Amino acid sequence: MTQNELDLLIDAITPVGGDAYELANGRMDNLTKPLGSLGRMEGFALALAAINGTQKPVIAKKRVYTLAGDHGVTAEGVSAYPSEVTPQMVLNFLGGGAAINVLTRHVGAEITVVDMGVNFDFGGAPGLLDCKIGMGTANFVKEPAMSREQALAALSAGIELADQAATDGVDILGVGEMGIGNTTSASAILAVFSGLSPEEVVGRGTGVDDEGLQRKADAVRKGIAVNAPDANDPVDVLAKVGGFELAGMAGIFLGAAKNSIPVVCDGFISSSAALVAVKLCEAVSDYLFVAHLSEEQAHARMLDLLDKEPVLDLGMRLGEGTGAALAISILEASAKVLTEMVTFEEAGVSNKD
Amino acid sequence: MTQNELDLLIDAITPVGGDAYELANGRMDNLTKPLGSLGRMEGFALALAAINGTQKPVIAKKRVYTLAGDHGVTAEGVSAYPSEVTPQMVLNFLGGGAAINVLTRHVGAEITVVDMGVNFDFGGAPGLLDCKIGMGTANFVKEPAMSREQALAALSAGIELADQAATDGVDILGVGEMGIGNTTSASAILAVFSGLSPEEVVGRGTGVDDEGLQRKADAVRKGIAVNAPDANDPVDVLAKVGGFELAGMAGIFLGAAKNSIPVVCDGFISSSAALVAVKLCEAVSDYLFVAHLSEEQAHARMLDLLDKEPVLDLGMRLGEGTGAALAISILEASAKVLTEMVTFEEAGVSNKD
Repeated sequence: MTQNELDLLIDAITPVGGDAYELANGRMDNLTKPLGSLGRMEGFALALAAINGTQKPVIAKKRVYTLAGDHGVTAEGVSAYPSEVTPQMVLNFLGGGAAINVLTRHVGAEITVVDMGVNFDFGGAPGLLDCKIGMGTANFVKEPAMSREQALAALSAGIELADQAATDGVDILGVGEMGIGNTTSASAILAVFSGLSPEEVVGRGTGVDDEGLQRKADAVRKGIAVNAPDANDPVDVLAKVGGFELAGMAGIFLGAAKNSIPVVCDGFISSSAALVAVKLCEAVSDYLFVAHLSEEQAHARMLDLLDKEPVLDLGMRLGEGTGAALAISILEASAKVLTEMVTFEEAGVSNKD
Repeated sequence: MTQNELDLLIDAITPVGGDAYELANGRMDNLTKPLGSLGRMEGFALALAAINGTQKPVIAKKRVYTLAGDHGVTAEGVSAYPSEVTPQMVLNFLGGGAAINVLTRHVGAEITVVDMGVNFDFGGAPGLLDCKIGMGTANFVKEPAMSREQALAALSAGIELADQAATDGVDILGVGEMGIGNTTSASAILAVFSGLSPEEVVGRGTGVDDEGLQRKADAVRKGIAVNAPDANDPVDVLAKVGGFELAGMAGIFLGAAKNSIPVVCDGFISSSAALVAVKLCEAVSDYLFVAHLSEEQAHARMLDLLDKEPVLDLGMRLGEGTGAALAISILEASAKVLTEMVTFEEAGVSNKD
């Protein structure tokens, strides 16, 4: 994908409009419950109605994309786990034994695992979607994580994943990731767009100690100093301090908006990809839900930038799309309230005095 | 049920013990995820393991009991809706068109609707469980809501509902209610046990205006002054300012603990019943989960007394068991994490450096 093709795609994404929101709101207020008594679920249902352009949105086919990639910045000692855990966990996803497998099964969602750039030759492992851009990114403390062409290729791959979901009739998408080192990349992206200090944007990720936390802050500081990513050019930010799976996820958010599919980002890392997508195209926000508030300390700052309230707050910090899977079920329930509940008139129930 | 029989039953309820918690904790820490990364879900899973006395708790058969009753205190103008809405909504539950029907279907739970004391003759309506203690309570601003014998009978009915669930092989119970006027009763119970002022314990319920809110506070103040409920005698509190469905729910909490079934209370009103049950028998708390933080303003104070953190915070204030239904699904997911995820060794994944 060229920059020009990306610009054309972005221009074609439109904010959510039409009268479905108002129609759905009218219906919501006539359902047999006190006005507003389902709280934020009512807002979720109305947002889904608006995206689907119908008073009765249906969330039937659900899919989570879990994107994996490796990160050269792990050479700086920024993670509690070694890099080989990335391919090992990908194989665990394919075997069905990871948290994301359990939770997608629980909520009745499909899971598609995508190799965006793991430093491992999977040799055509069954069930793994191959979108590999490279064998892990370069160490962004020393040079750009990837070339601009690679960033555009990863974005394009993500857009195609959303296109495929549309073709397959998917009603809602969840987006998660696996990639040792990727909280450092997500923190760097947040630092560039927010102006927050490296110390403010880093957290313990999978569980680094105080020294590891300092190494993460140092890596963010050096990465930004060495590469000077341009906050006004989100593709430049992705290329210089991002990751292959982060760029892929940003592409999915763009592609979901393009195809009018509601899309749920998971936690800290996928939120950083959502932030890139929203910086590229503000209208993406209309299609975006944030699954949960991560324990990763800077996530709340990220959500301030995204201007989103998370669906859940369970103290999770696992990634993979685990929070997205659970949140999808709450969103599905919200849609069902609007589509399946009866009105006061239909039920013969007296309304408020 | 006599007071003596209740006392014997309470003596037979034991706190959760055994080594299942420790065994489950050992397993949890070897699953393929960073230590503690599933946050509060891990705590839910361990609590369920401890209750079930197994390392691998299974939540398969789920049931929500929705208890209905009418309240004489509605004569004081404490509700935004007329009393006839109680039976109308019971019929709506039986017809499948209410929010609780939608949400129990969504999470795969059964719903059992119980008439604990609605001021309406349902004439043996199919699907309705008849445990009617009376045609609504008396107005507790003028006299006790019910006799002590009625309170004991309602508690007994609730205990039998939990016994039936155990017989039916139910793995988890949710508890909700319908009863115009019952937030006022729940507020009075909170005031008695907390010593908070009437103004601090009342909220807008289904949506009263400022004058209605003042009438609720006045009703709580008068009800306590006229009846002088004894905070050291929870059955006395139930009888004097409670309700038939509140006493029934308190019985379910006791019965769930007796049968070692995890039980989820819904929002403000069912929490007041849980508070009564915990005051009767502290060990009930070991079996109790709180579904969500209600928008009803005093719910947070109630949860302080119960020393419980809610699973969800979605701004809901509908009752019926709607929050319990959603929370049951999160608890089921938590149990599945423990039972279905593989360990680092099983998956061949490298553990933390």
